[in-house]
Amino acid sequence: MGFMSFFLGEKKSTASVAKERLQLILAHERNGRGASPDYLPQLQRELLAVISKYVAINPDDIKVHMERQDDLEVLEVKIELPEGRKP
Amino acid sequence: MGFMSFFLGEKKSTASVAKERLQLILAHERNGRGASPDYLPQLQRELLAVISKYVAINPDDIKVHMERQDDLEVLEVKIELPEGRKP
Repeated sequence: MGFMSFFLGEKKSTASVAKERLQLILAHERNGRGASPDYLPQLQRELLAVISKYVAINPDDIKVHMERQDDLEVLEVKIELPEGRKP
Repeated sequence: MGFMSFFLGEKKSTASVAKERLQLILAHERNGRGASPDYLPQLQRELLAVISKYVAINPDDIKVHMERQDDLEVLEVKIELPEGRKP
């Protein structure tokens, strides 16, 4: 439930711009079990490739943001979908 | 920054269980432009297939949750990674 209100709040702040958006967040919690292979960048590329099979994505409209804190690694990808995508 | 603290807060509440976790959230904001094809379920399957190339996933450890509100559709996938994954 928490994440729903998070996205609703974020949506409200940009409601004036009538764009369609897709947002992907991948969070990896390691729990201090030592170095795992850092596969997130490669995984991110593959996830974007999958998404682009379903929606037309302009690479310029993709914003990627990664944060690390303690054992938590969060990758955020925001995509603005192009206008006139309706059939 | 907002989503980072969201995940950190969620992590804290389950810190006693030393599991490694992966969480995927996909949010689709339609902005009232009519019915788009509902590709999220199929997209979700493909995203999981990509993730399982990188981490060993037990299907029993995957929890999928979807919510809709107004023009916002949020898909959440939580995965508990198996123990002893270290090389």
